[in-house]
Amino acid sequence: MRLGLDAMGGDFAPLEAIKGAHLFHEAHPEIEVHLYGDETAIRSAMQTEGIDESLFSITHCSEQINMEEHAARAVASKRQSSIAVGVQDLAQGKIDSFIGAGNTGAMLVSSVLILKNIDGVERPTITSILPRPNGQDGLILDVGANADCKPQHLLQFAILGSVYLEKVNKIEKPRVGLLNIGEEKEKGNQLSLAAYALLAEEPSINFIGNVEGRNLFDDSVADVIVCDGFTGNNILKACEGMYYHIVKSGAKSEFLNRFNFHNYGGTPILGVKGNIIVGHGISKAHTFSQMLKQGMQASESKLVKNIESAF
Amino acid sequence: MRLGLDAMGGDFAPLEAIKGAHLFHEAHPEIEVHLYGDETAIRSAMQTEGIDESLFSITHCSEQINMEEHAARAVASKRQSSIAVGVQDLAQGKIDSFIGAGNTGAMLVSSVLILKNIDGVERPTITSILPRPNGQDGLILDVGANADCKPQHLLQFAILGSVYLEKVNKIEKPRVGLLNIGEEKEKGNQLSLAAYALLAEEPSINFIGNVEGRNLFDDSVADVIVCDGFTGNNILKACEGMYYHIVKSGAKSEFLNRFNFHNYGGTPILGVKGNIIVGHGISKAHTFSQMLKQGMQASESKLVKNIESAF
Repeated sequence: MRLGLDAMGGDFAPLEAIKGAHLFHEAHPEIEVHLYGDETAIRSAMQTEGIDESLFSITHCSEQINMEEHAARAVASKRQSSIAVGVQDLAQGKIDSFIGAGNTGAMLVSSVLILKNIDGVERPTITSILPRPNGQDGLILDVGANADCKPQHLLQFAILGSVYLEKVNKIEKPRVGLLNIGEEKEKGNQLSLAAYALLAEEPSINFIGNVEGRNLFDDSVADVIVCDGFTGNNILKACEGMYYHIVKSGAKSEFLNRFNFHNYGGTPILGVKGNIIVGHGISKAHTFSQMLKQGMQASESKLVKNIESAF
Repeated sequence: MRLGLDAMGGDFAPLEAIKGAHLFHEAHPEIEVHLYGDETAIRSAMQTEGIDESLFSITHCSEQINMEEHAARAVASKRQSSIAVGVQDLAQGKIDSFIGAGNTGAMLVSSVLILKNIDGVERPTITSILPRPNGQDGLILDVGANADCKPQHLLQFAILGSVYLEKVNKIEKPRVGLLNIGEEKEKGNQLSLAAYALLAEEPSINFIGNVEGRNLFDDSVADVIVCDGFTGNNILKACEGMYYHIVKSGAKSEFLNRFNFHNYGGTPILGVKGNIIVGHGISKAHTFSQMLKQGMQASESKLVKNIESAF
């Protein structure tokens, strides 16, 4: 197996990305990690850290997409960026997964333009991990790729999330919940009311009904929670903001620490023809190592093939 | 001034409601508190607590709306419930504010049916307090009264929230932010894109642009944050769920404690012809006392008249 890593992605690139690759290599020496980015900067970071340069192969990329760039324009104009070249190699089968903590929008746009959607998938989606007290993670999607959704998109997110948790996280028949403003079937906005009907009729998923925001972090409710990307993105960021201020105020606990994305790594883009893991811009070595592990697991579990079979 | 309190509202009614009225009375003996509910149960609770029965006047109500009842059906059928009678008295000017921790939907439906909308207000709205590290509270609306919104509804929420924070919380020119998935003007879903244009053109508010979920708890961003009720409700409940699990895991801090609704009381329903404060079902004495204080402040600040002038 060969994992591709965007060495230029994230606020502390390339140093933290490379340190993360090294951490991952120590745990999984049998897996090849291939780096994308500015070769001089990469080699210099390796020398700084005393990392054996022969451990990783490198594809030099002369361009770089910055965190704040307009995603679609950047992908269109920077064909030699580490993101574009990495996704291209993934599309051509030169690597098994591509992992990066750069511009999320650019990762998404590249995935859609270069890898293309899996047949039958209308809207690829970005997900987020939901920490749970019992140690098992939940998954919420979409969290920002699709600001406006139709009911059938929510149904597709349910299928994508179910296949991911079943195949990658080894959860049997993941319970699917529809995020809504009440548990009762007749509660909701136009979108959720229409989506409920579709979800209830879909035999391939384990739909358990509506789930409220307060149940996101409950072990006992749903494993996969689906919503439109506007709602999901705002919830995700509200929880991030709350986490930030609570930690800053001095509160501590093991569970609180599980909201630290450094501990869970990145999240997959689902619905495209390739394994893509995107991480937070401020990721550090440990996070990159976790993200590489997620890329490895996605590839090991034949995630794309399993999604193809589900659609 | 005369405040009406639904003594039957909440999971610990009437005992905690009455204890709250007593706490409030000790701090504000000049304000009359009038109780609505089952007179026998109210007097029995007063005796249990050793509260002087002459402190509060009582309107006996022979019916009660439970927490889980369908709001519209319950309001239509239970004309003698404490909620219906209290809101009726508010409409007739017998009390200056009505406060309760009962069925939120029933409080909202009664407000709309009995008090009626303030002229020009299309959609009354339920709000929620946003705790901020600097001790000043922000306000997010709508949090559930309006699952589907049009752009002009978000504009109206902005005006309602601004008047509330300016008049009741004495914040000068409250900064209004539009909840969105990116700070840039061109980011958003169809609703937020259209609402942005309306908000930017409205001279009576201090619109500062888009605000992301992660800024909800920041002192320095916006005071009033507007969104559709589906998104707001889900964010509110997600934060409640996160708070619950974090506290349960043993984390502690003064700021974390500010997410405890017991400390801030209830929230107003804005846009109807009367001051209504609704509280959480599991409110206890201290919370009821805080809610009565909010009802007092709404009345003192002539909130309804100020909203009428703004529309």
